[in-house]
Amino acid sequence: MKLHDCQMAPNPRRARIFLAEKGIDCEKVEHDILSGETNAGDYLKINPWGTVPALELDDGSVIREAPAIMRYVESQHPEPNLMGKDPLEAAEIEAWERFSEQNGIGAIGEFFRNQTEALEGRGLPGPTSLDLIPGLVERGKRRAAWFYEELDRRLGESEYLGSDRYTAADITAQCAVDFGNAIGMGIPEGCKNVARWHAAVSARPSAGS
Amino acid sequence: MKLHDCQMAPNPRRARIFLAEKGIDCEKVEHDILSGETNAGDYLKINPWGTVPALELDDGSVIREAPAIMRYVESQHPEPNLMGKDPLEAAEIEAWERFSEQNGIGAIGEFFRNQTEALEGRGLPGPTSLDLIPGLVERGKRRAAWFYEELDRRLGESEYLGSDRYTAADITAQCAVDFGNAIGMGIPEGCKNVARWHAAVSARPSAGS
Repeated sequence: MKLHDCQMAPNPRRARIFLAEKGIDCEKVEHDILSGETNAGDYLKINPWGTVPALELDDGSVIREAPAIMRYVESQHPEPNLMGKDPLEAAEIEAWERFSEQNGIGAIGEFFRNQTEALEGRGLPGPTSLDLIPGLVERGKRRAAWFYEELDRRLGESEYLGSDRYTAADITAQCAVDFGNAIGMGIPEGCKNVARWHAAVSARPSAGS
Repeated sequence: MKLHDCQMAPNPRRARIFLAEKGIDCEKVEHDILSGETNAGDYLKINPWGTVPALELDDGSVIREAPAIMRYVESQHPEPNLMGKDPLEAAEIEAWERFSEQNGIGAIGEFFRNQTEALEGRGLPGPTSLDLIPGLVERGKRRAAWFYEELDRRLGESEYLGSDRYTAADITAQCAVDFGNAIGMGIPEGCKNVARWHAAVSARPSAGS
């Protein structure tokens, strides 16, 4: 089993942290998103959508999309549980995991990509050439502001995001917040609950993944 | 159990078709997205994210996000199976379900919203006021073109999208294609496999949902 990966991107990191939390040390194949390598010939044979992460199994099957990878790994390695011990908990974890993907990683990515000249023509991940749109810089910023605000509200009532313990929801939110930190967005001043939670998740050994 | 719903929107329809395929006839509470009702007081108590669908259980728990609703219903009513009979099939269904959400419903929504004056200030679902961005009309169109192209490629090698039978992946893709039809985008001329598959899924009794 090997993970098609990119160290600098937030989505593959969701899979890396998930694997680390499960104690799985699998081969990682690094790809260069910035050069457009993942939208060209060889990688498109592995994943025609041109996205990372993708998990290649020993029989050649390829699992695409971070949440599908997490769910597959959870099915093969149920402990520690990261996606819900019962259907209702699983639903709450999935809701917050998706919230963090769309309004965290998605919004911060919108803010970042659309002001980054090196990404001209690559407005979104994938093989379709899409112009950058300057208006999305401001929109991404506003969406991200709501992400932090809502995260802070939730973390004021719960120690972790999707449950009372660390789960896949925290992993995706953590990747979003660290992505924001990396591009200079940062946790807003007043978000004390996010800061407390971020310190806790960052202290886990998996955070180095 | 009741479904917070909106007849005209593609995302609640994913849940409605899923419930119909399971033979579940639950109460539907209609909300008026266009008036902004779902971003105001009463509905925000049910779902602070202001999105539909949301599934309210008899004990008052609320499940948000269409895929989380589908997964919860599948856990309570396993037959007919719509989300995968084994972990690898489940992963492939989830990947295509997400693909259809992002590149189908998401792209067509981007195309539609950003040219619809009645939605000014509501660039995306949810309570954050976001200006419409004219550049997203063209971007949505280009993304949707890739969605149909990739769907057609896939349906040339498989009768259904995520598996050899009708699953949650088909439901979401069907909601995307019908959304496109409703706003005048339509299945591109050359996409014969999409047309064949669309006729088949539209003939199912659940398609009326």
